[in-house]
This record gives sequence, structure tokens and C-alpha cells, in this order.
Amino acid sequence: MTSHAAALAGEVPFKNFPPWVVSKLRPQAIDLIRKVHNWVETECIPAEPIVKAQLAKGKSRWVTPPLIHELRKKAKAAGLFNLFLPGHFKESPGLTNLEYSCCAEIMGRVYWAAQTMNCHAPETGNMELLAKFANEEQKQKWLKPLMEGEASSAYSMTEPDRASSDATNIACRITYDNSKNEYVINGKKLYGNVLWNQEVKFHILMGLSDPGNSNPWRRHTMIIVPRDTPGHRQVRNLSIMGYDHAPEGHGEYIYENARVPAENVIWGDGRAFDIAQGRLGPGRIHHCMRLIGQAERAYELALLRSIDERKKPRGKLIGEFDSNIERIAEMRMQIDAMRLIIMNAADTMDLRGNKAGRYVIAQSKILVPETLAKVIDECMQMYGGQGLTQHTVLPELWTYARFVRIADGPDAAHRHQVGRDQLKAARKEKLVSKYQAYRDRNRELRKLWKIEGLEQEFEWEYVPLGGSKL
Amino acid sequence: MTSHAAALAGEVPFKNFPPWVVSKLRPQAIDLIRKVHNWVETECIPAEPIVKAQLAKGKSRWVTPPLIHELRKKAKAAGLFNLFLPGHFKESPGLTNLEYSCCAEIMGRVYWAAQTMNCHAPETGNMELLAKFANEEQKQKWLKPLMEGEASSAYSMTEPDRASSDATNIACRITYDNSKNEYVINGKKLYGNVLWNQEVKFHILMGLSDPGNSNPWRRHTMIIVPRDTPGHRQVRNLSIMGYDHAPEGHGEYIYENARVPAENVIWGDGRAFDIAQGRLGPGRIHHCMRLIGQAERAYELALLRSIDERKKPRGKLIGEFDSNIERIAEMRMQIDAMRLIIMNAADTMDLRGNKAGRYVIAQSKILVPETLAKVIDECMQMYGGQGLTQHTVLPELWTYARFVRIADGPDAAHRHQVGRDQLKAARKEKLVSKYQAYRDRNRELRKLWKIEGLEQEFEWEYVPLGGSKL
Amino acid sequence: MTSHAAALAGEVPFKNFPPWVVSKLRPQAIDLIRKVHNWVETECIPAEPIVKAQLAKGKSRWVTPPLIHELRKKAKAAGLFNLFLPGHFKESPGLTNLEYSCCAEIMGRVYWAAQTMNCHAPETGNMELLAKFANEEQKQKWLKPLMEGEASSAYSMTEPDRASSDATNIACRITYDNSKNEYVINGKKLYGNVLWNQEVKFHILMGLSDPGNSNPWRRHTMIIVPRDTPGHRQVRNLSIMGYDHAPEGHGEYIYENARVPAENVIWGDGRAFDIAQGRLGPGRIHHCMRLIGQAERAYELALLRSIDERKKPRGKLIGEFDSNIERIAEMRMQIDAMRLIIMNAADTMDLRGNKAGRYVIAQSKILVPETLAKVIDECMQMYGGQGLTQHTVLPELWTYARFVRIADGPDAAHRHQVGRDQLKAARKEKLVSKYQAYRDRNRELRKLWKIEGLEQEFEWEYVPLGGSKL
Amino acid sequence: MTSHAAALAGEVPFKNFPPWVVSKLRPQAIDLIRKVHNWVETECIPAEPIVKAQLAKGKSRWVTPPLIHELRKKAKAAGLFNLFLPGHFKESPGLTNLEYSCCAEIMGRVYWAAQTMNCHAPETGNMELLAKFANEEQKQKWLKPLMEGEASSAYSMTEPDRASSDATNIACRITYDNSKNEYVINGKKLYGNVLWNQEVKFHILMGLSDPGNSNPWRRHTMIIVPRDTPGHRQVRNLSIMGYDHAPEGHGEYIYENARVPAENVIWGDGRAFDIAQGRLGPGRIHHCMRLIGQAERAYELALLRSIDERKKPRGKLIGEFDSNIERIAEMRMQIDAMRLIIMNAADTMDLRGNKAGRYVIAQSKILVPETLAKVIDECMQMYGGQGLTQHTVLPELWTYARFVRIADGPDAAHRHQVGRDQLKAARKEKLVSKYQAYRDRNRELRKLWKIEGLEQEFEWEYVPLGGSKL
Repeated sequence: MTSHAAALAGEVPFKNFPPWVVSKLRPQAIDLIRKVHNWVETECIPAEPIVKAQLAKGKSRWVTPPLIHELRKKAKAAGLFNLFLPGHFKESPGLTNLEYSCCAEIMGRVYWAAQTMNCHAPETGNMELLAKFANEEQKQKWLKPLMEGEASSAYSMTEPDRASSDATNIACRITYDNSKNEYVINGKKLYGNVLWNQEVKFHILMGLSDPGNSNPWRRHTMIIVPRDTPGHRQVRNLSIMGYDHAPEGHGEYIYENARVPAENVIWGDGRAFDIAQGRLGPGRIHHCMRLIGQAERAYELALLRSIDERKKPRGKLIGEFDSNIERIAEMRMQIDAMRLIIMNAADTMDLRGNKAGRYVIAQSKILVPETLAKVIDECMQMYGGQGLTQHTVLPELWTYARFVRIADGPDAAHRHQVGRDQLKAARKEKLVSKYQAYRDRNRELRKLWKIEGLEQEFEWEYVPLGGSKL
Repeated sequence: MTSHAAALAGEVPFKNFPPWVVSKLRPQAIDLIRKVHNWVETECIPAEPIVKAQLAKGKSRWVTPPLIHELRKKAKAAGLFNLFLPGHFKESPGLTNLEYSCCAEIMGRVYWAAQTMNCHAPETGNMELLAKFANEEQKQKWLKPLMEGEASSAYSMTEPDRASSDATNIACRITYDNSKNEYVINGKKLYGNVLWNQEVKFHILMGLSDPGNSNPWRRHTMIIVPRDTPGHRQVRNLSIMGYDHAPEGHGEYIYENARVPAENVIWGDGRAFDIAQGRLGPGRIHHCMRLIGQAERAYELALLRSIDERKKPRGKLIGEFDSNIERIAEMRMQIDAMRLIIMNAADTMDLRGNKAGRYVIAQSKILVPETLAKVIDECMQMYGGQGLTQHTVLPELWTYARFVRIADGPDAAHRHQVGRDQLKAARKEKLVSKYQAYRDRNRELRKLWKIEGLEQEFEWEYVPLGGSKL
Repeated sequence: MTSHAAALAGEVPFKNFPPWVVSKLRPQAIDLIRKVHNWVETECIPAEPIVKAQLAKGKSRWVTPPLIHELRKKAKAAGLFNLFLPGHFKESPGLTNLEYSCCAEIMGRVYWAAQTMNCHAPETGNMELLAKFANEEQKQKWLKPLMEGEASSAYSMTEPDRASSDATNIACRITYDNSKNEYVINGKKLYGNVLWNQEVKFHILMGLSDPGNSNPWRRHTMIIVPRDTPGHRQVRNLSIMGYDHAPEGHGEYIYENARVPAENVIWGDGRAFDIAQGRLGPGRIHHCMRLIGQAERAYELALLRSIDERKKPRGKLIGEFDSNIERIAEMRMQIDAMRLIIMNAADTMDLRGNKAGRYVIAQSKILVPETLAKVIDECMQMYGGQGLTQHTVLPELWTYARFVRIADGPDAAHRHQVGRDQLKAARKEKLVSKYQAYRDRNRELRKLWKIEGLEQEFEWEYVPLGGSKL
Repeated sequence: MTSHAAALAGEVPFKNFPPWVVSKLRPQAIDLIRKVHNWVETECIPAEPIVKAQLAKGKSRWVTPPLIHELRKKAKAAGLFNLFLPGHFKESPGLTNLEYSCCAEIMGRVYWAAQTMNCHAPETGNMELLAKFANEEQKQKWLKPLMEGEASSAYSMTEPDRASSDATNIACRITYDNSKNEYVINGKKLYGNVLWNQEVKFHILMGLSDPGNSNPWRRHTMIIVPRDTPGHRQVRNLSIMGYDHAPEGHGEYIYENARVPAENVIWGDGRAFDIAQGRLGPGRIHHCMRLIGQAERAYELALLRSIDERKKPRGKLIGEFDSNIERIAEMRMQIDAMRLIIMNAADTMDLRGNKAGRYVIAQSKILVPETLAKVIDECMQMYGGQGLTQHTVLPELWTYARFVRIADGPDAAHRHQVGRDQLKAARKEKLVSKYQAYRDRNRELRKLWKIEGLEQEFEWEYVPLGGSKL
């Protein structure tokens, strides 16, 4: 049986993918997915405790563990690097979004597996951004090392005293100093990867450059801030639910008259929103794709505990309790439902473009992390006390899923957008008129069937007579 | 733009279908789906109050309204009849399950629309059953009138004093009377369509014919019980959440020495479970397919109310409240998630056969009605008081979704089956061994990276050392 | 053991009441509660099918069944009439709200039990209203027959084309006709009990009498509309989730130049909101009190089914499945939690007055029906197919709980009120200042403990520096 | 106004307590509660960042911060020590469980506040255990230092390879060595506070001493293991959801031939289950009592953020979004509902004893942590990104609530117990007979009202005819 036929027949790792997905995978993608699977199974899962030990026993928690460096080299050599890259990059393996979603799910089984393949945030977003909007010199200087896997970077947008989910509120000030052809930055930022890790070479910062501009979408600029820029100070690392997320972390920063050469501005003054727009797209759901794999991992642990002969409360295996049998079914179905959502989102972008993907991206970002955080929480509960400790990866898996509910704006903001879009569409598609037309047709049918006398008792449901102006 | 191109471009009614689905629809299916859409929009929705009036004002609630008779004739003439039929029927339009799911969703917008196209339960199941298992004479006598739309039928399995979700409990007794070459039936049945409606010509009854058989799957027989069989008595119509579901209803029956000719046995004595098995398949999720359309209809009403200028609590439209904007988003996303599940189920059966569909059918039957009942409940709540009255179809839509949670066995039974299958698979796929292999590989890596001294602190998560026998 | 001691010791029906409640019941209340319990157990529950039969087989569904008439007479004779009446009525048994809540819960076990004791809506609210705001002649003419149990009435506020949850929107027009000293009514109303039942003698209608008044709380008037007032026409009965709620029902009405004598105005022109305000109070949670009893009844049926020897799916009793064991526990705990909420609400009004009860009333109205509708829904599901039919009272119990979620305004409106009150209180109680004071004190402690150098890393959580103006 | 009157009038901190609770508080308890409130407000909340800084900047995370030592001295001097102690201790302030629940809630506002008052787990449980079951010498040696606040201790029961929620599975072996009059311990334990903290002076360990005993409740023994016992080795600290919970922690231990003098056995060989039974009672819900205060704190932060002028997504305060207004209401109501449950549980034990409290304890342990973890999660979400970081205490509050869902056995185990108790009670109270009696009475009423002919159509709901043997 060929590799392709085996995939169609439901071999691991294709077994869990919906048939419509498997049937759309091209042979070369099938091979690549299989390689990613083997990579994660052989090099990553068994190495999890090694990475933990290296992090804990190294000189600092802010040094990338040697094992990860080693794996990055090997993955690059094996052609498993930068898989996320869209086809227009010459380094790209040319995967469709749907094909990449299969890879990303598998990577999700281990927290740092994507990093070994240079497919991790925020690098993926930064690489796309620089590739699209940086000039040639910038690309050479900043993009190339990222793609080669020789440097790390950060994206710096959120601020502590602002509702940053509405980015027009961003207030970190960028002023041009004509005398030195430099930009001067003053303000505070949250969540850029920590500079304590020497591999982080620069931050891409979004700041307020033209507060007086009448167009709120032209007031902000993106600029590259190299590490060690004087005036750029890290206050602390921000833990997420108690995890420091070393060795990358999430820094809190203060800029006090930090000076950056003018050549570091990306695409020009006031283009931050245009750039941010371009940064959107498939990259926004990579997190969610990986969450599927995380949830599968958590689910595997729940199954493992269910058939563990050593654990027999009241004389039965965990998995012999009807209540747990139902819980397992519920988890299985919820994970599969979320996979359908994320794979449909990827496929929609493949078929109709990123812009048409706006709704499916939002749907993924809202439903996937919330649902899967619940699934993982249930796995922890079935696991008992050890489900909350470092005996399993469950608490880390949960924390990441919980984090994604907020990472790119809280889900309420996305829900709000979807809801408003729906209401706009209802007006645009003239929903009221449609129901009024039903009523008109109903009037005809009443005559035809001679039930005019019954009008009031069987009146049409309450369709407004007038128009609507929402 | 061709009809096909328009569908791909997202014209109504294809707009709501996932792109991967639309791209798999064949041109002839696209035309048929469009016809079904026009049929429902023009002939069914506007006629809803007419049907209600005819039912209420007729001589009896147990007479099929004239309008429905009329539409059945028109639909048949227009080639919109028996769309559900699999390709091996000569009358079949040859739709794939996926293609039919699009039709069924649209039919779901009106409670009785499927009936106008002869695609309603229990007829669809009965037709499949008779086509597969009846002999030629039986087909001529009982199947043909159903397919021609000239008769109605019922399926009679559930019993009041038994846990019928486990059908081996069925106790209604069938005894062969050699002297007259007849079968004698004694027992009670629930939920067969009511005989008060003269169009119901027969019940297909499952009964216990060989209680002593050592094989519990050989104890039962299926037999056709013609209407007006002496000894077959209807006790009452069973209302569902207050609805009588006239003019079909759900009867409660007593059989007292009801005699049926031996020729009415289907496929032979003791074959009931084989037949029931064959009755399974796509037909089991037709209800769920239609529920998508029902939920879309409910959602439309919620949108309509949201932009209704007459309703302004606290001076704002219903749809101007942020909480309602979020509710609308949530409904939209849940309906779309359920559609992905049902369409993936249909497609899985197309690609891998009905047997492979066991899991996706269960997933549909569990998640779809529960989720959509909640969505419709939310629509009712947004509608306010009128959401609960006959001013809208919402209460009927909710009731039907709630009914489907139980109709073919309570969801707990299906969840139980899925959970048990998952645990069996975990053992069969040797999940424990897989984790033990991770640990073995981990041992190698520890040596390689020289962290043997740290074993205990960074020990592998608690993988059982022994096997498992669940 | 005295009756009181037995109650304290947890005899039925006191067993389910929290000890703090039982210990507050006075001996005479304990006797009365016991009588109500016996009444419901002996006269009501066993009579349920009789009432259904009388309703179904009578000449019309809109005639109060003879058995209920009989029971009303007996209850009156036995001193079990008008128990809800506050102490200032001479007919009142003088129960506290807490004591009455025990009675009401027990009444809730049967849909019409409250009616046999003249403690049913809308009569209770109407009696309170008339007692407080009607003049002596009006009391004699309209109130007395209600209290004597000789007449029925309706309350008519909601309108079809308005957001009636915000009652300032009420638009049914009341105009004074000087020439005849009459008021002329034009408009539409929903939900007043149906006039098809001859015992309904009048509607208390709220209408718009002075639309130009600058004070929106002075624009409306309450007026008594006698049955058979010309121009007052009933369009239909409004079913609630398929139930007609005969013999009381919920009418839909049109007023076309309906004329009512001026003497029927209650308390004077423009006083409708003052009256409505007075109608609020304990009466608003009588529904919720009864819902506890309904849920207990549903729960009893779930238990009954759990130990029913005839039902053994997969060879086990329903109640031998671990999943059902957990479900039963969950139901038990949710019902008890809801009882604590409602009894705390009653007691709060006893101790602090109705006005202070605003929050606990809202809490009851929001949480109790939503939670108990879910509990009853779960009971239906455990019951299987018969859980949805008239074989049990479950569907009616559910429908009533669902109805209460909307009956006195949708729960979202109540939640909105609670949320706004909380935010107002936060500002009034100067929450921001409180946290600023914490920070000031923290500054002192830093000095004391000499950790000034660590300020930034261990800065106080983000307390705003300025004030707030929400 | 006296202190008592002010409490009744709803002054802080009595404002949030139900009126029925406040009215039961004795004057001396009111004074004490007020003192606890002032203590927490003045000494604890503002000191939170100091404690964090001392922990982070000290020589080790496993040293109790100096500020806490200082506060423990001051609290002891101020009579705010050992408040939890039942009245029979001479050191006890003599609070009822209900009164103590008010104190505990207030302590819950800060993670370590209970510790400053010597009211923290596991000390409280250990003190009760030793006071009840230790002999005089043991009391002098081990109990006294705990009560004086001069030592710490741990409770050691759970094991890694056992289903410890069913304690008969405990396998850590205790063997008597006659030659040295010592007990030898071999096995593994989880969750005893870490010995890295020098103040932990001993573990109370439950082990298997008589595996062959035919009575499974006589197989285990409790023994005091002094710190620095050779053969008692700590493997690591167990983090809970990423938090190390320093300076107490949760240790993982190995016992290898650890020897303990025979005099350290508590109450005698084989008495472990009798002792464990005695350890149950109010102490089991102290966690839940404090969770109320934690949730109030989280809620306060959500309110604070809602009115924070610096955060205006889409131009509105967080608290001006209708969706957030509803969320705030929901949180408020859920917290209050949980308080009613916990205070009713405390009061039930006061009025009816600990044994009668079995159900209310389970109800508290199941509903309170699950509900409040959700409430706190919602607060985090409203807080946005900072809600997950150390900028607020929210992640720690959530983690603790999540931990309590498992700490004393997973909630499923408690639910199971409640469900089984309910089913047993149903049989004991003859629920089936009760319904059969309803039916008998119904038969009489049928005759009386002459509706015998209608039996079948209006048959009694499906009451089993036979008995039940669950």
C-alpha cells in the first residue's frame, strides 16, 4: 500500500483527520505530515523531561535548552523547517493551509515541538510581516536570521493602561528626532518575549506616531527595536497562571527615551494598521491548530488513566465507571468537533482567501480554546490529584488553552465582531423584506385556500410592517 | 455565471454551506438543491399558517391537510420526490449523502416540508427496510404505495414497560399459530403513528418470537401489521411536550391476540436484529440534518427580532445590546459547528461506508439535538413572551430538537457506546505500550544528555508499568 | 413528640427544609404547613388524572373542572384559603414570607393545588393590588368575590408590538370621554386569562392615558375592565410551548373603543406605576417558591424510574449506572441550592422589608427557573421517551419553569438591573478609593520592611490612580 | 448604634451575609468578626506584595516570610489565634460553625491570612486529630507547639499508585519491629507539606499495618513521623497548576525503612479509619468557607476593572457593555448562592451535629469550588491579559479554587456518595409504595367522580406495580 493509500485508509496519524480532509491532501503533503508525526513521536515526546531538566538545572531559565538547539539543527537539515511559510516564499514547502493544519495539530502534542521546526509564535507572524512589508535591507538584516533559525524576535503591541484589544488605543509614543534621524520611544509594553534570553534580537513595536491625525488608522507606526537599545528596560517577566514560560517568557517593558534609527521603521510612518491587517490571516489560528494536538495528548492521558490497573476506586478501573465512559465520549466528540472547525477554517482560506476567512478565523478563536480548555480540565479531574501537578503535562496544556482565549484579544471582543457582522448582513440581505414577502405570498395562499376569515387566529408570526435601520 | 459557479461563489442557499462541501456538489445536485430551496421558500414557509388553519378547522386533527396533499402531488410531478433514496433505487435521484444533507437542511426550515417531498420519517426508514428485506410480493403490496406517496406507515418498536433503548428487552409476544398459518401478537407498543389517520396503512412491528433462543439476537421478528387488524387497539395519542403532532401523532397501542397472516413476516423468523441493523445508516441522521435548517429558521427569527424597530427596551433595539450581539454570535457559531458535524458524517459514509459511520452518526445524534435545542431556547428567550407562544414557530422547533435527543435512544446510551468503543480502541491500539515505548526512548535520551542523576525529579509522567485488561 | 418537635426533628414535609428555616417556624405555622402537605398529598396528587379527564371530556376546555370547585370549597372550610395574604388582612392566617414559602413549595407539587387554596396567580397579585389601591366600593364589588373564591380575574399589561419588559413603552390608549364620564380603550394586549372561562369577571388593564406628560412615570393608568365590555375582543388563546393552559389560558385581546365607567379607574389617573410598584414584593417570587415543589416532584419521578425493576438497559437498573447516580446527586443539590435562595429571599423580606428585597427577588427570579428547568429537563431525559409524553407530568413541570423565566420580564432584564445596581454600589462605596488606600498602606509597609528597591517588580496590582465616573 | 445593631443594619463586613445569619450571630462573635475584618483589611491585603517580595528575594522560597511570623505574633497577642477551635478546647473562642464561617470567609480574601491566625490547613485538621486521639504525652510534645504557633506539621495519606480517594487502597507499609519497639515504614506519599521548610516538625502518616485483617477498616494505622527521620526522603515539591505554593508546598516522599518509635502511634494499631472519621466534620469545609472570600476578592477586581477609566475598548468602559453588566450580575448571584450553601452547612452542623452534616458537607465540597472557579475564571477573562499574570491575584485565586475540587477527593467521588445515599433513602422511605398509594387513592376518586370508563386514556403515570430492590 502506498503512503497515500495508507493515509486514505486511515493509518496513524491520518486516522483522526476527517475523510474529506485526507482526500484533499496531496501525496507530498502526506509524506511531510508523516515525517512531522515521526519527528514528534520520536524526538519530542520522549524528550519532554529532558527539556524540563535542562531548563531547571541550567545556569538560568532564560537560556534555550541545548536539546532544542540540537533538534532545530536536525529539523532544518531534514527539511522540517518553516513549514508554515506560504507558497510564495522560496523556502516554503508549499503546503496549503489545510495541509499545514495537519502538521500544526501534530506539533501541538508537545509545547516546544513547533519551535524545533521554526513554526512557533511570534516568529511565524514576524516572518510573514517582514517578508511582506520590510524593505530589502531590513529583510537581510532581520528576517533572514529568523528564517535561518539563528535568531529570535518579539512582537510588542499590548499596553498595561489601555484597552489594547482595540488597537487604536495604543499610546506608546514614537517621536521623530530630525536632528539625528532617529525615532524616540516612550511608553510601556506587555508580553514581548523577554530580553533575558540572549537569542531575542529585536522587538517589532507598534507605537503612536501621529496622535493628531484625523484618521485613527494612520496614527500608528511599526518599528524594529534592536535588543540592547538604551532606554529599553525590562521590568519583569509576566507569568501566565503561574508558569514563567521560560525560556521565552512574556516581558513587561518600559521605554524611556529609547532611540532607534529611522531606517528601522517598517513600510513608513503611519502604516501600522495596514501592516497589522497583513499580519492577520492563517497565522491567527496556528495556536488553535496546535491546541487540537494538545487536547489529543490530554485525552490520551485520560484514556491511559482510565485503563490503569493500579487505580481502582471502589474496586473498579476509572474507565469502568459509566460516568467516566460518558465523559470520555464527550471529550472525544468535542475534540473532533473543534478539529472540524479549524480545518474548515484553513480550507476556507485556501478556497476563498484570507479575507473571506474573517468569520471562520473568529469562530476558531472563540470556540476552540474555550472548548478545549474545558476538555483538558476534565482530563485533569479524571486524573485526580496528579492531574494538577507536574506528574503530567495536563496543567501546562490547560494553561496554554486558557491563554489562547485571551492571547489575541479576549473572546468577547471576537464574539462582538461576529455578532455585529451578522446583524449588518441581516440588514444588507434585507431579512425583514424577505419575511414581508413570505407574508405577501401567504396572503395569496389564503385567498386560494379560502381561509380569509381565519386571518386573525392564524396570523403570520410577528413580522414588522416597516423597515429597520440598525 | 452558471448555476454551479454561482453556488461556488456563495449564492443563497449555498452561502451557509462550508466551501469544502460546495466544491464536492455535482452540477445536477446543485440544481436539485436549488429547486428544493425554491420549493421551501415559495410553497412551504408562506403556507405554514394555512396548514395550521386547515388542521384546526378541519373535521378532525387526524386528517392530512389538503394543502399538503396538493403539494405532494406537485412535488412528485416536479421530480422532488423520494430524494433521500440511495442510488440503487431506480426512482432515486442518486444523491450522495452529503448532497442529500444539503437538501434535508433546507427541508428542515418547515416542519412538514420533508413530507411534501416524501422524505419524512418514519416512511424513509420503512421504505429502505422494505426495499432491502421484503420479498417481491411484499414490495408490491406495501412498499410501492409508500414510494408513490399513496400511503403512510409506522414503525413500532418501543414498549412502555421495557428499557427499549436496549432492544433485546423487547417483549411484545409473537406466536405462530400453525393451524391458521398466522402470527398472534400480544403486548404494548408506543410511538407508532396513529391509526386515527386513515392514510396509515400498516405498522412494521418488532416482537419477541423465540424467547428461548440462546442467541439473544435471534429472538425477535419483524412483521407487517395491516391497519384494522382486529385485536390491535389504540389507547391514545402521545403528546410530545404538549404537542399532539397531528395529523401523524405518536400512538400508544395494545395488541390482544391480534392475528396477522404469516406472509407478513419480513425476511423470516428471528431476523429482526439483522433487519434493524440494515435500517441503520444515513437515515439515522436525517432528523439531525433537518435540525440544522430548523435552527437556521429560529436564528432568522432572533435576528428579525433584534432589528425590529417596534421593540426598544430601555430605548435600544434588542440587537443593540452587547449581550444580545454576543448571543447572536454564539448561536451563529454553534449552528455552523453542528452543520460541520452532520456534513462530515454524511461525507464519511459516502467515502467509507455506513459501517465506518458508526462513530460520526453517534456524534451527530448526541451533539446536534442538544446543542441546537439550546440555540433555539436562546432564540425563544430573546424573543420574549411571544417566543413561547404560537406567534412564532420557535416552540415547535425547540420541541422537535428536544424530541430528537430521545427519539432513537437517549443520548446517554449513544455516549455510552462511543465511550466504550474508545476504551476498546485504546486497548487494541496498545496505548499503554506506546507510552512505555516513550519511556524507553526517554531512558536513552537521558543517557545521551547525561541527566541520569535527575531521574527522580524529572521522572516520566505516571505510565503504568504493567499491561491493562479493560 | 409534639408537632413542633417532630418538625424540628426533620419529619416529612420538614425534612427537606434547611434547619435554620424549621427553627424559625412558629408552632401555628408548623401546623398549617402540615395541613397543606396533607391536603396536597391526599386531595391533589391522586386527583391529577381526574382533573385532566374532566378537562378533556367536559363540554369545553374553558370550564374549571368540578373537582377543583369542590376542593376550593373544602379548602375554604378547612381554613386553607388565602394563605398568601399578608398579616394586615383580617382574613390572613398571618404567615411570614418564610412560612408561606414552605406552604407554596408544597403547593407547587401539583399545578393547580395553589388554586384550590386561592393562592394562585394572577389572583394573588390582583387581590393585593385592589386591597392596597382600590376604594371601598371597588373593593366590595371586585375584591370581595376574589377573596371569597367566587370569581376570577386577569392582569393585562403586556402588548405585542412593544418591549413591555420596559413598561414605559405600554401604548394601549385610554382616553377620557367627558360626555359620558367613561374611559375609552384602544389597543392590543397579551396574556390576560381568557374570557372564554366564564368565571373571569374582569381584567385589570394598564394603559397610556397621558402620553404628553413630561414625567414618563405619570403617563399610565390602571383600570378595571369588566367581562363582556363591548369592544373588548379575544383573538385567540396563546399556547405556551404547546400547552393551552386551560381552563385559565393566556388570551390575546383587541380593544376597539371599549368603554368603561370612570369609577373603574384605580387610585386615579396616571397612578399605574405607583400601583405597579406596590404590586411588587413577595408576590413576585410565589412562582419561584412553587417551582421548588415542582422540581421535587420531578426529582421524585426520576428516583422512581431509577429503581424501577422493569427498566434494565444493559442489564442494570437506571439507578445502577454511575452516570445516573451522579446526575441524581446533581439534581438533589441544585434543588436544595435553589430552595436556600428562595427561602433566604422570603426571610430577607421578613427581616428587612420588601424594598430591601429587590436584589434577592431578582436573584430568585433569575436563578431559580433557569436552574430548575434544567433539573426537570434532566429528569425527562432519565425517564426516556415517556418523559416527554403525558405519561408523566414532567413536560408540564418543565414548561412552567421555562415560562417563569420570561413571565415577569425575561431574565436578561433582571440580570441587567442587578448588574447596574452593583456597578452603582461600587462607585457609591468608593471601591477605587478603597484600593488606593490599600496601596497607600502598602507604601508604608514597604518602608517598614525596607523593600523600596523592589517596587517595580512587586508593584501593587493595577489600581487606577484617578477616580471613576461610571 | 451598638456594634451589634450596626451588624444587623448591614454594616461592612456584615453587609454581604444573609440576614438570617447576622441575626444568629452573638455579640461577642460580631466583635470578633469585625476584628478579623480589620485585621485582613489593614494587615494582610496591603501586605500581599511584601510577602511576595520576601519569598522571592529571600535565601530560599522554603522559608516562611518574616512578615508572616510577625503577624502571627501580633494576632496571637490580639486574641485572633486558633479561632477555628471547637468550644471544648480551653483556648477556643467558642465560635459556632456559623460564626466561624463568617471569619473564614474574611480570611479567604488573602491566601495566607488564615495562617496569621493559625487557622490554616493542614494544621487545623491535625490539631483536632491530636486533641481527640493523641495521648497526653503526645499532646504535650506535638500538639502544644502547633497550638502555640511554634511549629508546623503535615498530613500524609495520598499515594501515587493508588486510588487514594478510596482510602482502603492505601498501601504504604508499616511493620512493627519487636526487637527495637519501632515501626518501619516503606512506601510513597504525595502532598505532605515539604520538609524543606524547617518549621515542619512532623508528618501524620496513614499506613497499612495489618493487610491480612478481614475487616478492611482495621488494616491501617496513623503514626507521627518526626522530621529528619532517616529513610524519609523528599523527591520533589509538587507544583499545583504551575504554582509551587511556597513556603509550604506539597511534597512527594519516599519511605525506605524509615523507623519511628512505637510511642508515635496514635490511638493504637488499626485505628486509622476511626481517627480519619473523627477528623471529618466542619474542618472539611474550611477551604470552601475561605473560597467565598477569595471569590469576593476576585469579584472586587472585576468591578474595579469595570469602572477603570483607562480601559475603554470601542470607547466604552468595560462596565458599560451590557454583556459585562450581565456577567457581573451572574457573578454576584453565584457567589451569594454559594455563601448560602456553605453557611447552611455550618448551621446544620451547629443544630444537628457533624454526622447529620454529611450531605451538606458534600454539597459544599462539590458545588462551591466548581462554581467559584468558574466565577474567578470569568473575572480573569474580564480583566483581559493582565488577568492571567501576576499583575493581579486572580490566577492564584483560581488555582486554589481548582485545587479544592480535588483536594479532599475528586468531586465525582462526593457526587457518587450523595447519589447513592439518595437512592438508598428512596428505598428506605418506600417511594414506590408512596406512589402506589397515590394510585390506590386515585382509584377511589375515579369511582367517586365516575370516570372509570376513562381509565386507560388518563391512566396514572407509570408507577411500577412491584417492589424494588436497588
